[in-house]
Amino acid sequence: MENRLSTLSLLLSGRADAALIISNENRRYFTDFVSSLGYLLVTHKESYLLVDSRYEEAAKAQSKNCTVVPFRKLSETLTGLISQNSIKSVMLEGSAFTLNSAAVIENYIKQAGAEAVCSDELDNIIGKMRITKTAEEIEKIRKAQRLTENAFCETIKLIKEGVSERELALDLEFRMRRAGADGVSFDLIVLTGARTSMPHGVPGDSKVKNGDFILFDIGATSDGYHSDMTRTVALGKTDSTQKRIYETVFQAQKNALSAVKEGVTCGFVDEAARSYIYSAGYEGCFGHSTGHGVGLEIHEAPSVSPESDFVLRSGMVITVEPGIYIPGKCGVRIEDMAVVTADGCIDLAALPRELIEL
Amino acid sequence: MENRLSTLSLLLSGRADAALIISNENRRYFTDFVSSLGYLLVTHKESYLLVDSRYEEAAKAQSKNCTVVPFRKLSETLTGLISQNSIKSVMLEGSAFTLNSAAVIENYIKQAGAEAVCSDELDNIIGKMRITKTAEEIEKIRKAQRLTENAFCETIKLIKEGVSERELALDLEFRMRRAGADGVSFDLIVLTGARTSMPHGVPGDSKVKNGDFILFDIGATSDGYHSDMTRTVALGKTDSTQKRIYETVFQAQKNALSAVKEGVTCGFVDEAARSYIYSAGYEGCFGHSTGHGVGLEIHEAPSVSPESDFVLRSGMVITVEPGIYIPGKCGVRIEDMAVVTADGCIDLAALPRELIEL
Repeated sequence: MENRLSTLSLLLSGRADAALIISNENRRYFTDFVSSLGYLLVTHKESYLLVDSRYEEAAKAQSKNCTVVPFRKLSETLTGLISQNSIKSVMLEGSAFTLNSAAVIENYIKQAGAEAVCSDELDNIIGKMRITKTAEEIEKIRKAQRLTENAFCETIKLIKEGVSERELALDLEFRMRRAGADGVSFDLIVLTGARTSMPHGVPGDSKVKNGDFILFDIGATSDGYHSDMTRTVALGKTDSTQKRIYETVFQAQKNALSAVKEGVTCGFVDEAARSYIYSAGYEGCFGHSTGHGVGLEIHEAPSVSPESDFVLRSGMVITVEPGIYIPGKCGVRIEDMAVVTADGCIDLAALPRELIEL
Repeated sequence: MENRLSTLSLLLSGRADAALIISNENRRYFTDFVSSLGYLLVTHKESYLLVDSRYEEAAKAQSKNCTVVPFRKLSETLTGLISQNSIKSVMLEGSAFTLNSAAVIENYIKQAGAEAVCSDELDNIIGKMRITKTAEEIEKIRKAQRLTENAFCETIKLIKEGVSERELALDLEFRMRRAGADGVSFDLIVLTGARTSMPHGVPGDSKVKNGDFILFDIGATSDGYHSDMTRTVALGKTDSTQKRIYETVFQAQKNALSAVKEGVTCGFVDEAARSYIYSAGYEGCFGHSTGHGVGLEIHEAPSVSPESDFVLRSGMVITVEPGIYIPGKCGVRIEDMAVVTADGCIDLAALPRELIEL
């Protein structure tokens, strides 16, 4: 792992003497150490990972590029480090501190003679670092994707009349976890029949019927990294309306994937999918953005949304997930992750995207 | 459901003109409506539940004691309501707002000519309301407990040499969810062998061996309410050291459960378990508190900790979970939930607590 803490320290110059990071994802990103509690104090000279006694041994063995400091009383350890390093300002991770937790920490910082900087500046700095993935991070995302695909291939064998959305979602999750996934990327979405038209539906007791679409928006996590995939399959033969919707989404996704490369804007990728769907007569049936970044969190920058002038760079990992939703009838979405490269993208999906009629 | 919003409104008098609640648990507690996003604005006259278009229909059908206001632009809807109700101060839920989300909302509040109150005051007010459970809430906790016990009784049938902690934990979770649990109360803990001495261990690939203790700290959620139970069982015959540890914890828990009743302090209940364990020669082997409140969250007030002078009242639901941990050898914890009553407590466990040797 490259030394991300040195990079962050450089980026802090002129803004603050130190940064205090508490989110599990960012502690992990900078130190490689996994824990559910801890305080990462980044200064211009050195970085300190403050952990309680539970984590002391593991943190010393596994963390990178920082000094592990076990604490009994956080107030004493934190104020001590701030004083020793002559720190006068500490930038807080504004997306992770609650008002209550910030009030406690601000008090400690003041006791040490320093000032807390409460804004979204640190989040923006870290977000810009995290948006581009290393080869190692991409391999972790790919591994999560394989876990997702393998579970999907097994679970769809269970599809028959009468099986419920909830049963399919549970089966998928347990296959992923039994195969070694850390967990799921989000509450898995499995919808059937007319319910496929709800982009954010929650699996319920609805049962699969012949001729229905079944939409799976699913993902496993592995080594902290997320995967995100959507497939829409059918039980039995689809009608001509369903076929036309499916083919339109299929081609729209293909167009958007073809549009992805370093230097183009997110708006350009979105437009590649959206204009195809709209010109096929489905204007108003695709209400969400075409995609989003994926990594240590399921939704990261950039947002692949209409008119976004954000420029894609090599190493960014985004989803490409157009859909068509006809309320009361059905919905189709096809989603895969792509790694941006100099001349196009690496499609992280190993599964085909053609319509499967079971 | 009694009108909790009226109670909150009364408790706000003299402190602020309004309160803004955003946590899923508290929105649910006050309105009975389940959603993953929403803003509950409580004023002295009326309460408003602001939801986006996804939730409008369901919120109107299911929410209680409030007016549902769908929003497209939160800024416009929120500032409108603040102005219309001549609100001059809005207390924010300090445990739920992050620094970043609070900055956005404070800006809206200012635009409406009012002031945001950022402190833990609202959390304290709501915490005092939630600490005492109604009969309906206790039934939900009891239902969650039954789901936990039923899964446990099935999963322990799988215990044999070579089965891993992770497999047992997954089996338990899957059974709870298939039986209708919303989910698990926390990442289930299943530990075996010497690993049972870690109060917060995470299930791994360690496999059960003959003569081992297997510790289960588990819980299902149902209707949003949590359950929390620990049982320590053995595969095969235990030795005299293990038996003595088990019997000591068993009696310590019995003593603490006997100590629970309205009017006694949490410290008194803790001491009933702790003094028995210490006097049996296990001083230094019981490092955590004896218990905690349970409800819409797994850890709620009160903390049943040493020397706490917090006085128990009828309707509070607490865990009673003493343990003895001998590093490198084994640990035993037995945990159940109890409802405080005027003359004792209602033990929510239906399962026996005697040592099971499988």
